Amino acid sequence: MPDGARRPIITLLTDFGIADAHVAIMKAVVLSICPEANFVDISHEIPPQGIAQGAFVLETAWRQFPSGSVHVAVVDPEVGSARRGLALQASGHHFVGPDNGLLSYILDEDGARAVALTRPWYFLNKVGHTFHARDVFAPVAAHLARGTALSSIGDAVALTELRRLPLSRPSIQPGEIEAHIVHVDRFGNLITDLKKAELLSWLSEGNRAHIQAGPVEINRLSRYYAEVEPGQPLALISSSDRVEISVNLGSASEKLGLGLGSAVRVTRLE
Amino acid sequence: MPDGARRPIITLLTDFGIADAHVAIMKAVVLSICPEANFVDISHEIPPQGIAQGAFVLETAWRQFPSGSVHVAVVDPEVGSARRGLALQASGHHFVGPDNGLLSYILDEDGARAVALTRPWYFLNKVGHTFHARDVFAPVAAHLARGTALSSIGDAVALTELRRLPLSRPSIQPGEIEAHIVHVDRFGNLITDLKKAELLSWLSEGNRAHIQAGPVEINRLSRYYAEVEPGQPLALISSSDRVEISVNLGSASEKLGLGLGSAVRVTRLE
Amino acid sequence: MPDGARRPIITLLTDFGIADAHVAIMKAVVLSICPEANFVDISHEIPPQGIAQGAFVLETAWRQFPSGSVHVAVVDPEVGSARRGLALQASGHHFVGPDNGLLSYILDEDGARAVALTRPWYFLNKVGHTFHARDVFAPVAAHLARGTALSSIGDAVALTELRRLPLSRPSIQPGEIEAHIVHVDRFGNLITDLKKAELLSWLSEGNRAHIQAGPVEINRLSRYYAEVEPGQPLALISSSDRVEISVNLGSASEKLGLGLGSAVRVTRLE
Repeated sequence: MPDGARRPIITLLTDFGIADAHVAIMKAVVLSICPEANFVDISHEIPPQGIAQGAFVLETAWRQFPSGSVHVAVVDPEVGSARRGLALQASGHHFVGPDNGLLSYILDEDGARAVALTRPWYFLNKVGHTFHARDVFAPVAAHLARGTALSSIGDAVALTELRRLPLSRPSIQPGEIEAHIVHVDRFGNLITDLKKAELLSWLSEGNRAHIQAGPVEINRLSRYYAEVEPGQPLALISSSDRVEISVNLGSASEKLGLGLGSAVRVTRLE
Repeated sequence: MPDGARRPIITLLTDFGIADAHVAIMKAVVLSICPEANFVDISHEIPPQGIAQGAFVLETAWRQFPSGSVHVAVVDPEVGSARRGLALQASGHHFVGPDNGLLSYILDEDGARAVALTRPWYFLNKVGHTFHARDVFAPVAAHLARGTALSSIGDAVALTELRRLPLSRPSIQPGEIEAHIVHVDRFGNLITDLKKAELLSWLSEGNRAHIQAGPVEINRLSRYYAEVEPGQPLALISSSDRVEISVNLGSASEKLGLGLGSAVRVTRLE
Repeated sequence: MPDGARRPIITLLTDFGIADAHVAIMKAVVLSICPEANFVDISHEIPPQGIAQGAFVLETAWRQFPSGSVHVAVVDPEVGSARRGLALQASGHHFVGPDNGLLSYILDEDGARAVALTRPWYFLNKVGHTFHARDVFAPVAAHLARGTALSSIGDAVALTELRRLPLSRPSIQPGEIEAHIVHVDRFGNLITDLKKAELLSWLSEGNRAHIQAGPVEINRLSRYYAEVEPGQPLALISSSDRVEISVNLGSASEKLGLGLGSAVRVTRLE
């Protein structure tokens, strides 16, 4: 068996922050079951109870990991209530988390399958009501990483029964696109819900985009940040293939006064 | 030898933050001695010089790790002075850190044993006065992880000679318990020093708890956060089996104006 | 082959922060090429576009790692422009990052060699303009970690052609040294550009240093923080062998009103 194959990748995404021991406790539980686990932290700085933000950050990351990875995602304000726990399989990856919309993007993957976490012999012996990341999701992820099949981990459940977020989508009209900001990154870059392929298909041959973002108008797509002068706004295609509004060497969020949910309008430049 | 056994777990807890390279330097030193080390960060966001907070966060985490783990804890304002360095063994785990109370909770474990770190051949060649995490604690942890016995690492020292924090304890009277907040987590949840077992034993059969926390009175123990309406306060048993005051989908710390050391009063509901 | 040798160390230093998935995506790319990679995060909290700060933090850390480590450093405001990507070899370590000064300190190492990253077969299949950490630097680091030689990874380039920061240096005069603060750590300690060896050589036998740092005068070098009363300023030799101004149990930066670039004057005490 190749060395890498013995160290299954488990990624973690939570709103637990890094000051408390919650994330370390999840890892401790996993290591007790699967000592070979190779952890990669995606983010623990999802805003508290920020299900939509967590769903988006997970969506930007998981595809880059090797097939066979297990992704544990926990933003779980209803922990301990009747909300279900889930394990999903899609595109050769596994996902574990609460049934509250956090895994919405995954449900749209071709061939996605889901099970409800109903089999306590895959949980910790004692399951409380406030920390299922420790008691349920970490041990289930560890068992998946060790090779337990999805069909053994829980009871099959139809994707249509699962909760989905109303995912932000651009309004694409013949004469105008209204996109929306779905993520503000550390640099103040504004990532929209408009995908590169959607924009290019709408623009069609020979047209250029005119973009209105708050107080500024942008008449071209740049390729990289330093293409404009320091402090100037620009639009480009983000590393996740979405339209992004930025300010070179500055924060577009601060400079343009825009944030989550703000509209960005695209028209064709005559 | 099983694969897991070749990768000894070393956890790290410090007040170093994550912007500087201090934690990476500790790991570099460990890897130079024990290349198989499997690191888990517990927290590096202990408030600067926050010995009591560090002791509490360590106490919430270490038991979850497999036996044989080595826990390095460094909150060390007296670094370089005459304060001792310690290695402890308790319940099958090892602990390394300064003798300043940070390891107070461990000293109460059955069968705990301690040695003072007096043997420079287990340290880096050059030991300075400002960074014993690098020069002393990291190399000692690496040697323990490689299998050096506690009795070889240092000179036995009686537990009674070691410094202890005045650990916060609830005042349990026949008619009332006064508990105290010992931790505020990322969500603003208020964790008290009152343990579940203490509360249940005091309440006795058929009685219910009435809890006064700052401006609010709470007449029942909830099982989970979403049991009350958004924005409403509640009390429940925390994931570390302590009485916890929370606000569903909000910050109890902000909403109730309570923080570290604040009192929480429990009486029996007639 | 010993177990440790099969797990090449890859360190990461960026200005990406830890809320977004950028760092996880870099690790995912590395693991796809080099599943045995053993990651150590140096810092992801370099201030956005803080090339000089990143260079300094890297310099304080990399020497502690075992020979053979690969250090990926990305603070890259000009990503996607004509600025070069680099791989360096120095003192048995490899370094990967943009040619913008971030690797300035490494260029001064004896025997340092550099190549420009011009061979797309070591990159991801699709290279964009905004995230070379993912598309170029991570895969190149993974190939170096797997044993690809520096001379194969890119085209040799003379060190004199590479961009260097104007690294902060103290002004050492016969009667006075003017040092400068080059780093403020989490505790508010002020690290200067004056190295221990430079100070000792200048002071000469029998002389003591008199240090003026903002509003305070310090008449001796302390060995450790707790040597002075709580709240009092002191000077000592930092863990990276530089002159450091501190306040015991407090923040020198706040208390003295000093920060990056501030001058610290050293004279000989009569």
